[in-house]
Amino acid sequence: MKSVGLVGGSGYTGGELIRLLLAHPSVKLDAVTSRSLAGQLISDSFPNLYGKTDLRFEPVDAGRLAQCDLVFFATPNGVAMKLVPELLDKGVRVIDLAADFRLKDAEVWEQWYGEPHACPQLLEQAVYGLPELNRAAIEGAQLIAAPGCYPTATTLALLPLLEQGYQSRGPIIADVKSGVSGAGRNAKVDLLFGEVTESLHAYNVFAHRHHPEISQTLTQVSGTAPELVFVPHLVPMLRGIHATVYLQVDIDPEKLRELFQQRYSAEHFVDLLPAGSHPRTRYVKGSNQCQIGLHQQGNQLVILSVIDNLVKGAAGQAVQCMNLMFAVNESEGLAGTAQLP
Amino acid sequence: MKSVGLVGGSGYTGGELIRLLLAHPSVKLDAVTSRSLAGQLISDSFPNLYGKTDLRFEPVDAGRLAQCDLVFFATPNGVAMKLVPELLDKGVRVIDLAADFRLKDAEVWEQWYGEPHACPQLLEQAVYGLPELNRAAIEGAQLIAAPGCYPTATTLALLPLLEQGYQSRGPIIADVKSGVSGAGRNAKVDLLFGEVTESLHAYNVFAHRHHPEISQTLTQVSGTAPELVFVPHLVPMLRGIHATVYLQVDIDPEKLRELFQQRYSAEHFVDLLPAGSHPRTRYVKGSNQCQIGLHQQGNQLVILSVIDNLVKGAAGQAVQCMNLMFAVNESEGLAGTAQLP
Amino acid sequence: MKSVGLVGGSGYTGGELIRLLLAHPSVKLDAVTSRSLAGQLISDSFPNLYGKTDLRFEPVDAGRLAQCDLVFFATPNGVAMKLVPELLDKGVRVIDLAADFRLKDAEVWEQWYGEPHACPQLLEQAVYGLPELNRAAIEGAQLIAAPGCYPTATTLALLPLLEQGYQSRGPIIADVKSGVSGAGRNAKVDLLFGEVTESLHAYNVFAHRHHPEISQTLTQVSGTAPELVFVPHLVPMLRGIHATVYLQVDIDPEKLRELFQQRYSAEHFVDLLPAGSHPRTRYVKGSNQCQIGLHQQGNQLVILSVIDNLVKGAAGQAVQCMNLMFAVNESEGLAGTAQLP
Amino acid sequence: MKSVGLVGGSGYTGGELIRLLLAHPSVKLDAVTSRSLAGQLISDSFPNLYGKTDLRFEPVDAGRLAQCDLVFFATPNGVAMKLVPELLDKGVRVIDLAADFRLKDAEVWEQWYGEPHACPQLLEQAVYGLPELNRAAIEGAQLIAAPGCYPTATTLALLPLLEQGYQSRGPIIADVKSGVSGAGRNAKVDLLFGEVTESLHAYNVFAHRHHPEISQTLTQVSGTAPELVFVPHLVPMLRGIHATVYLQVDIDPEKLRELFQQRYSAEHFVDLLPAGSHPRTRYVKGSNQCQIGLHQQGNQLVILSVIDNLVKGAAGQAVQCMNLMFAVNESEGLAGTAQLP
Repeated sequence: MKSVGLVGGSGYTGGELIRLLLAHPSVKLDAVTSRSLAGQLISDSFPNLYGKTDLRFEPVDAGRLAQCDLVFFATPNGVAMKLVPELLDKGVRVIDLAADFRLKDAEVWEQWYGEPHACPQLLEQAVYGLPELNRAAIEGAQLIAAPGCYPTATTLALLPLLEQGYQSRGPIIADVKSGVSGAGRNAKVDLLFGEVTESLHAYNVFAHRHHPEISQTLTQVSGTAPELVFVPHLVPMLRGIHATVYLQVDIDPEKLRELFQQRYSAEHFVDLLPAGSHPRTRYVKGSNQCQIGLHQQGNQLVILSVIDNLVKGAAGQAVQCMNLMFAVNESEGLAGTAQLP
Repeated sequence: MKSVGLVGGSGYTGGELIRLLLAHPSVKLDAVTSRSLAGQLISDSFPNLYGKTDLRFEPVDAGRLAQCDLVFFATPNGVAMKLVPELLDKGVRVIDLAADFRLKDAEVWEQWYGEPHACPQLLEQAVYGLPELNRAAIEGAQLIAAPGCYPTATTLALLPLLEQGYQSRGPIIADVKSGVSGAGRNAKVDLLFGEVTESLHAYNVFAHRHHPEISQTLTQVSGTAPELVFVPHLVPMLRGIHATVYLQVDIDPEKLRELFQQRYSAEHFVDLLPAGSHPRTRYVKGSNQCQIGLHQQGNQLVILSVIDNLVKGAAGQAVQCMNLMFAVNESEGLAGTAQLP
Repeated sequence: MKSVGLVGGSGYTGGELIRLLLAHPSVKLDAVTSRSLAGQLISDSFPNLYGKTDLRFEPVDAGRLAQCDLVFFATPNGVAMKLVPELLDKGVRVIDLAADFRLKDAEVWEQWYGEPHACPQLLEQAVYGLPELNRAAIEGAQLIAAPGCYPTATTLALLPLLEQGYQSRGPIIADVKSGVSGAGRNAKVDLLFGEVTESLHAYNVFAHRHHPEISQTLTQVSGTAPELVFVPHLVPMLRGIHATVYLQVDIDPEKLRELFQQRYSAEHFVDLLPAGSHPRTRYVKGSNQCQIGLHQQGNQLVILSVIDNLVKGAAGQAVQCMNLMFAVNESEGLAGTAQLP
Repeated sequence: MKSVGLVGGSGYTGGELIRLLLAHPSVKLDAVTSRSLAGQLISDSFPNLYGKTDLRFEPVDAGRLAQCDLVFFATPNGVAMKLVPELLDKGVRVIDLAADFRLKDAEVWEQWYGEPHACPQLLEQAVYGLPELNRAAIEGAQLIAAPGCYPTATTLALLPLLEQGYQSRGPIIADVKSGVSGAGRNAKVDLLFGEVTESLHAYNVFAHRHHPEISQTLTQVSGTAPELVFVPHLVPMLRGIHATVYLQVDIDPEKLRELFQQRYSAEHFVDLLPAGSHPRTRYVKGSNQCQIGLHQQGNQLVILSVIDNLVKGAAGQAVQCMNLMFAVNESEGLAGTAQLP
């Protein structure tokens, strides 16, 4: 039984991680911190966990966290980088679910996140925690940067093509739609039910922080920097990412399908749906699955990819990485199936 | 053309009032105040009004408000009572959509609202702005206390019986369900889409401030204080109040129906639905209607009453009062029909 | 490993049962029937199960079902009673999730369900599958009538009082609100998103079939027939039952709390929330829990009780019964926790 | 006062048209037909209209319809074309809200709609009812083909550019999201609340019937056939279309903005939002407005365009056409403002 801790447990990502870790057979959740809620019962903030845990939020105590085998960070961007070096020094392994270690280039990070990076020397060492891409590196990693939700859905839609050297004639367009939980449990008028329900809108066109993250991975994978247009949208639903990815590639339809089949046949959490399928976000809600549908007309490809932003797009993927790091079954604690309805 | 002003225009009730007043043929909306948004375009806060008005929020200025014929208050409880006396002194008529003038007894007010009333001398003079109950008084009033949303739906369900001296054998139980907009446009975690959608719960059992308000009206109408149990619930929808009212009365079914028919036949905004009807909140959404359905089994009555909490339960009813005060057609500016779907 | 079958797997209750049974460690789901979908993959109807099962719907074949240790029925009312006698004769144990065996009196059944009962001789033998009430009888039962969703939430709110002989001075009023999934996966205009969302309404006032079921249990438990008023409401959410139960009882608040605590302290699936709590349906969504909140003012009690209608109100409770019948841990396969958000 | 009729009034588009026509100052709605509901009160099907009309649905009677000045068709595709010739012969003007007269080429029509066109000779004469494009022709038209909802939102996003000869370097990609009401009031499992809510998915990729319609208009406007990729998505909301349109054009940002400003400055129902704006579908819900936001990075344009699919995308646009045909103010009866919240 491994001991794990969580820094920043009061948000939606933190809560989802707690839910998954409490039910995980190989780990014990020993410490959950929250500056604002220290001393309070976790189940007061997450009444869905009533009767499942007596843990209380506690203040951040590096000494106490250092006793864990692994510590997750589900803190706002810019927090983890201030504490992680000390934990790594003490031999604790770290999985950061925020963006602090996702970009390799400290200058790009500063440009998108508006402050200098606190420990740029760790950026190279950090492993981007997408198991379908970096499995071996994750197993041995000390520091994991868990991918963002948009990048996970988008990257999985493109990996099989880009890895094989296929390139898009024009820009790759990722029109991506997200449920509201991706915006966190923050008291903002813009996230009120009264504002969000019965509406849909794009936001941060050309200006979303997941753009450089997606670009970085696609560049690494394809060996060249693809032109990427990424537009996120807010959808009146709790969970779910739906990426609609457009690109122009000269490829035979059978070849395309075969590429994806081969690439993902051994991947437990990526399902290539039958030809003609249109995946729905609700069919992966609460689960760690990514479902992919392929559509093609001549050179024009439309690839549909859905995940649960809080599971495969955050907490579930982090647990998947942890499983690899602890050398237990990669799908342990991640068997949850979406509910219908 | 009458000149009207609005103090506190940044919330949902304020916004709805602005929407109604801009389209009203007999009034001109000359001033809308907001402490937090002063200087900003109203259409920045309410983009649904883009192209409909160039007005900006302005700071509260009693002198400027005094030039209006009538001023609405859509401020938080406890704000209006500090400014209203001055406006009344200057001859301005006032409709307060908050709770400041709803209760006749200053002690009861203090007990429920947690502070002494600032102008208890005005409580007697204030007219409770339920046109179906107090039409004549409203026409001549200087100060109107517009009813709460729960009280409007509940009271209209009971008026015809209580006015005729019918009493319930046991307590009158008002199990009332409300859409989320009733809680206002406030940045609170509890009102986030992520908290509210796909869920329902009761709140403030035995402790909601609309309890004394309903009790006061029922007592006034029936001449005796009925035992009232009132439980509000939050429903994952934008608008709508559904009151399910239970009481035990010895009355013949035909007589019951006749009572309601006679009472409301001349009321433009109260519809008695055909026997066996179950009104739905969406059929009055955006409109000023109240729809009522009657159900009976022996002595047991179940009366169903639905309104839009922001229209008949707030802004629409306030405009209805204003129409009476200005001696224009009572339904002017209130012709909006619910949309289906 | 026990072999189980399911007759009628194409609806929401059937799908939920499949989801739970596929993940259950002690049983193997060997046959799922559907007249309309025979031959098709279950995962085509329930794409959330894609990759979890290769089973196909099959036509009803009594011989094949007779090879199961236990057969569930998730068929429309009136179907199970035609097939169950044969299965019982062959020694198969049966859990019916429809209403065929819930009422003890065949005449009452006929009156509410509109046709003569096909096997009235089985009504007495059938055990009402509410484990918190009939645990011992369930363990040894051949035929279980799984309770309805409204009755489960309402009955659990009342058991501790009625069992101890407390009676309500006036009628017990159960104002109950349900998510839409309770109405099934039927192609009816009334269940369209376009009709349901952003709305709430009562239905079947004084005329819902769960009324005699609740009455029967309350009468059995209290030894006398309580006056019951039951009004169901449709709420724009997928899952969840919220019962708001009103009664007048002379009881000390501490005594009331103690009664519930003692009654449910050993019940894994019933949580008495801390004083002042207002349970929310989403905190039990997808789980088999019932959460209860107690409120009192003098003699007036308001008891709040929430469940997931498809889990504790249907499929989960049926699995709970099955666990008892198979003498495995009562909570096996029922560890799922609600997600937040 | 002009007399108008409506064939096919039982669906969502029909209901919306009834709502708008009943409130229209210049027309009288004299006949509404429905095969399935003939004889029933319209307000039984649309209880939001309770108290607003006593009209009943009636069977289709060409003689009776011929007494109208203008007849709307809100029938399923393929119905209007069988009745329209007779009405035109009798001098009645017609606005078809279905797809029967939208395509100019009868062969293309047959290919997409699966049957031969019943009156191909009328296709050339029919005027495509987009007032912002064909105002003059609409004024004098006998037969209007009201545009589809997706085409309206998409076309308005592109008109100013294509009309001026700008072309996209690569394909124009229209990733469009729609509320559920666009799918009509049909009893289909796929449209149930239980299926739709809390989910999002693409559908009919490369196979949606609005593709040839959009293509036809863009070709007509630009003088050349642009490469178009159109992917519709279903969003869990009642109303709203959000088109996210991607194209690559060499144009200066100021020039782009100026083009749109000039093109739409005189258009009452098209609002170009301030730079940086992300329009939201709810801000036009229930109104006839189209709101447009422009985003650009180098050659890459992202144009956002929102409408209410039932108003500007159907019934409202049809009324706008009717106003032009009747030479009344183009915005008569279309003053409705979206509600917030």
